[in-house]
Amino acid sequence: MSAITLCDVGPRDGLQNRPEILSPHVRAELVERLAATGLPRIEAVSFVSASRVPQMAGAEEVVAGITPRAGVTVAGLVLNERGYDRLVAAGLREAHFSFSVSESFNRRNQGAGVEESLALATAVIGRAREAGISSTVTLSTAFGCPFEGPVDPGRVREIAARVVAAQPNELLLGDTIGVAVPRQVEDLVASVAGLGLPVGVHLHNTRNTGYANALAAIAAGATLLDASLGGIGGCPFAPRATGNIATEDLVYLLDGEGIETGVDLDALIGVAVWLEGILGEELEGQVYRAGRFPPPLL
Amino acid sequence: MSAITLCDVGPRDGLQNRPEILSPHVRAELVERLAATGLPRIEAVSFVSASRVPQMAGAEEVVAGITPRAGVTVAGLVLNERGYDRLVAAGLREAHFSFSVSESFNRRNQGAGVEESLALATAVIGRAREAGISSTVTLSTAFGCPFEGPVDPGRVREIAARVVAAQPNELLLGDTIGVAVPRQVEDLVASVAGLGLPVGVHLHNTRNTGYANALAAIAAGATLLDASLGGIGGCPFAPRATGNIATEDLVYLLDGEGIETGVDLDALIGVAVWLEGILGEELEGQVYRAGRFPPPLL
Repeated sequence: MSAITLCDVGPRDGLQNRPEILSPHVRAELVERLAATGLPRIEAVSFVSASRVPQMAGAEEVVAGITPRAGVTVAGLVLNERGYDRLVAAGLREAHFSFSVSESFNRRNQGAGVEESLALATAVIGRAREAGISSTVTLSTAFGCPFEGPVDPGRVREIAARVVAAQPNELLLGDTIGVAVPRQVEDLVASVAGLGLPVGVHLHNTRNTGYANALAAIAAGATLLDASLGGIGGCPFAPRATGNIATEDLVYLLDGEGIETGVDLDALIGVAVWLEGILGEELEGQVYRAGRFPPPLL
Repeated sequence: MSAITLCDVGPRDGLQNRPEILSPHVRAELVERLAATGLPRIEAVSFVSASRVPQMAGAEEVVAGITPRAGVTVAGLVLNERGYDRLVAAGLREAHFSFSVSESFNRRNQGAGVEESLALATAVIGRAREAGISSTVTLSTAFGCPFEGPVDPGRVREIAARVVAAQPNELLLGDTIGVAVPRQVEDLVASVAGLGLPVGVHLHNTRNTGYANALAAIAAGATLLDASLGGIGGCPFAPRATGNIATEDLVYLLDGEGIETGVDLDALIGVAVWLEGILGEELEGQVYRAGRFPPPLL
């Protein structure tokens, strides 16, 4: 049993924010390769409308192309009950639901107010619980919003408490635009961890604080960390910025710190090299480029 | 008085590891622009042979092009007494001396054994002390060597103690190839800080651990941090890897953590944008690309 559960969101958050559209076949292969590295969890698909997010088209085909593997949970993102229905029909057993704690951001991104999304989350969580499906809620822009600026931690905690009352399995705090610093992460994680659910973080490295934030989150009690292979993805609100923290760089850091993840770093580096070939350009992740240390030959 | 003294090594360590050769005029302008941001210290030049490091040719011209500014120390790197003589003749008052604690690395990089470099450091420190010139010694590859692998912290501490006995003004530990993780940095800094001199770190972000390492170093008592504007530079031992931690990204992090540096982040971002124009390509630093938060307009 690992101390920390890593979830690779590259096939979803990563690919969704890239210009090219990969076929369901290649996306399934990415998930299969990730699953072979020892990663316990992969957010493989998003059940959204293909016209809105063409990169995520064919979620059912992706899922159908993945061979179930013991110890690996394949999860999907849903933003409403229609998405949840598709997830269940596709045979997945873990639903990730996300909304923003910032009114402006949630309206622009989800076309709904925070109260509306909270009600939707509650409905999905309830249905999942009844069906024995695990549910994870991510509160996005929990540290800052591109439209409203810094977000009041008290407001995040208040929304978190209402989500927890609906009894999902897990709660994540998202630094969606990568503005947080470690002391903010530590404070907010510690505060939300007190609500009684397993807590995690979804971190972006937009301003190079992501890895320090990951350690701060763990120090404060987070046990769930999102990351994306190669750090793929980006930020629609900062066109020249990078995306999620890179899974292999996070594993290098956690290995070094003696924090168990169960992931084979060399295998993960191999998948990043493969993905670079697929995407045809250098990825943000640095460990796969620099090589692990000590190098395998020493 | 700031809690932390930042030294921008971009004009030296950064430019030295880039393919293009900038004129002394442009390098002096870079130093002038950095000095205007509130940075207390800049490693502006290296007094080495121009045939060996053409990027550093014309150190005297660079120094001559810099207008002295109250509160800003302009330092130069020296690797031997000849370099020290040039530094004094150029009018600088702070000498940085560097050598590797790893025998193989030091032989390849400096053409000398560790004992020989230690004797050289002692000679330079002695002359500097007599002349009232400040001296800083950096022990490079203090966490790992590309040829020998992990470096024994006991060995680093032993060499550090011998350097301290020679009475330089400051001692830095260099993660030259960017392999360290925070707990190693914290342990080694704490151990070396016990020797009685102000201690600092020279960190590379080669494997995305640099910023977390900076916080660990500060937590352990480091008061001196090297960084390079835009994270320029690189690593001769990993051709696709990045270089030093970026000064502006470090300032964003330290500002957020409430650690005083005295540096104006917006001004520093402006210099990074200027430098990107000079170098004609995107730099590694992320804050100048993503923008600070909250954005100036909010």
